[in-house]
Amino acid sequence: MVKPLGEFDFIEQFLVAQAAQGQGFYQRSDTLGIGDDCAILPPLAPDEQMVVSTDMLVEGRHYYPDVDPHALGHKVLAVNLSDLAAMGAQPVSFTLAAALRGLDPDWLEAFLSGMLALARISQCALIGGDTTGMPGAGPQVFSVTVMGRVACGAACRRSGLCANDDLWVSGSLGDPAYAVRLGRHGEKLLRPTPRLDLGIGLRGIAHAAIDVSDGLHSEVMHLLRASGGLAALLNIDALPLAPDVQSAVAQGQLTLLQAQALAMTGGDEYELVFSAGPEHRDAIAQLGLSLRLPLTRIGHVVPAPQPRIQWHDATGEPVSPELEAQVKQGGFRHF
Amino acid sequence: MVKPLGEFDFIEQFLVAQAAQGQGFYQRSDTLGIGDDCAILPPLAPDEQMVVSTDMLVEGRHYYPDVDPHALGHKVLAVNLSDLAAMGAQPVSFTLAAALRGLDPDWLEAFLSGMLALARISQCALIGGDTTGMPGAGPQVFSVTVMGRVACGAACRRSGLCANDDLWVSGSLGDPAYAVRLGRHGEKLLRPTPRLDLGIGLRGIAHAAIDVSDGLHSEVMHLLRASGGLAALLNIDALPLAPDVQSAVAQGQLTLLQAQALAMTGGDEYELVFSAGPEHRDAIAQLGLSLRLPLTRIGHVVPAPQPRIQWHDATGEPVSPELEAQVKQGGFRHF
Repeated sequence: MVKPLGEFDFIEQFLVAQAAQGQGFYQRSDTLGIGDDCAILPPLAPDEQMVVSTDMLVEGRHYYPDVDPHALGHKVLAVNLSDLAAMGAQPVSFTLAAALRGLDPDWLEAFLSGMLALARISQCALIGGDTTGMPGAGPQVFSVTVMGRVACGAACRRSGLCANDDLWVSGSLGDPAYAVRLGRHGEKLLRPTPRLDLGIGLRGIAHAAIDVSDGLHSEVMHLLRASGGLAALLNIDALPLAPDVQSAVAQGQLTLLQAQALAMTGGDEYELVFSAGPEHRDAIAQLGLSLRLPLTRIGHVVPAPQPRIQWHDATGEPVSPELEAQVKQGGFRHF
Repeated sequence: MVKPLGEFDFIEQFLVAQAAQGQGFYQRSDTLGIGDDCAILPPLAPDEQMVVSTDMLVEGRHYYPDVDPHALGHKVLAVNLSDLAAMGAQPVSFTLAAALRGLDPDWLEAFLSGMLALARISQCALIGGDTTGMPGAGPQVFSVTVMGRVACGAACRRSGLCANDDLWVSGSLGDPAYAVRLGRHGEKLLRPTPRLDLGIGLRGIAHAAIDVSDGLHSEVMHLLRASGGLAALLNIDALPLAPDVQSAVAQGQLTLLQAQALAMTGGDEYELVFSAGPEHRDAIAQLGLSLRLPLTRIGHVVPAPQPRIQWHDATGEPVSPELEAQVKQGGFRHF
């Protein structure tokens, strides 16, 4: 059942699958997809510029070898689209490079099908790729580069954080880290949803944004370091805990503090953390309603000589020094 | 001497190295390089569009594990720039994804230095990346995605081949395949030169072009299949043999026919094969002189019901059926 894949056969399969979707990219005469030395992208509007991001996923490090291939195909693209979302960009296209062992055609079809389903709903065309055999029993490697477009000067940078901004997070937190801790394939760990509509909806509202790939605490630190002269005051009791994590607390499998620590430091969330002026609270609440996506205000930004995060509880009391120390060294370590 | 690399340390090193070069990209206020969720590319001119290509190199498959790291850094970028050259594009930027084992900092510095030296002379800025640890003793993997710009509609596609076109090849052929055959690190195998100036010089002249990564014969077949209704008549005695291969023939280490077979099927050349109308012969000769790059007319294109290549010698006699059969199944198989 397992046959080696020729480099060109594999790319050919991509092309057919992609073209069959009838995506806009492949119906234009001024573009070119898979099959030449380069892909040719559609011209941008005169007031637009392009944004680009690259991520690499390695078997045994970023995903379990026995992962559902449909979910893996989804995830490889999703983590890249999440970077576009954080910039407020509209997806345009992506390339895929893959180092594969000889594969079951069923596995490959499921992988492609998961990837191309997300590509279709995100209007992000697969425009090129490179596939190569992985010698010996080496782990498989996938690398995606995604391209999006934004109005010139309008991309939401990490460095845009302002004193007095509110800090918000989308969705709920903690379940991917909890699934990893249990050695399970959690649904969100498998199929993260890139918050593209949110990123676009926040144009003109958010000052700074970042996606939560490595853990909320360390992502907020990235914003603070990029912006400079600011600290964040964050309310641990405001963190939106994922339903699975809430259940685990209700059933005594986690303490509330353990659950909150997962939400503070757990990676693979692909939610957006963003900042905006307090005058936009109503607009952000409306946006959350229209997207059917919880948007939670978790703290705010103050001037400070050094970038730092101060966690406190609902009463304003600082969190325990032990928890603070844990969180600071936390961040997400893949597996 | 060997220490594990933190993901962010590594990216930070990139950034410093890149910024220190004072490249145009990093001196603009409307662009953004390494360090955010996405890089932001410079706006294109209104009549330009972007072209994109991706290649992946795997240790033990595309390069020897003991390769000079400076040469490897050069090559990882060069093979991608070669794809831009084939489209007649001007380089803009590239991303690098790397799956690394714990590395000697000296190795890494040499790798980056080789890559960034070529980036500098090609005016192609490193704008983003992703680095990850390769578990166990897995082979290292590098994936580069390169972005270039062309005037709208002016990219040189594989499908542009016309009946009566001349077929040309740049440089000389055969030494990378000869080096691989001898198990040696040949200079061209290590440090291919992407023919960017040639690609740009051929704007308005070439009808179709492709770079020779998998062997001349199979690349010309790609042109024929993409264009349709055409065959190529190619003169084996016109092939420009590389100096090392010529010496090997002179010293009796290769027969002339063996040398020609290397030139017909050897990969890793990164020369351009291109087609142009006979009216451009003088202009192409002039271009070759001004670039100090041999440009050799190796045959021409005729109408035909099926894509095929007919090899003949200087007297017009077809090559032997044995050689033809060998060449047809040849192509380049990495290692």
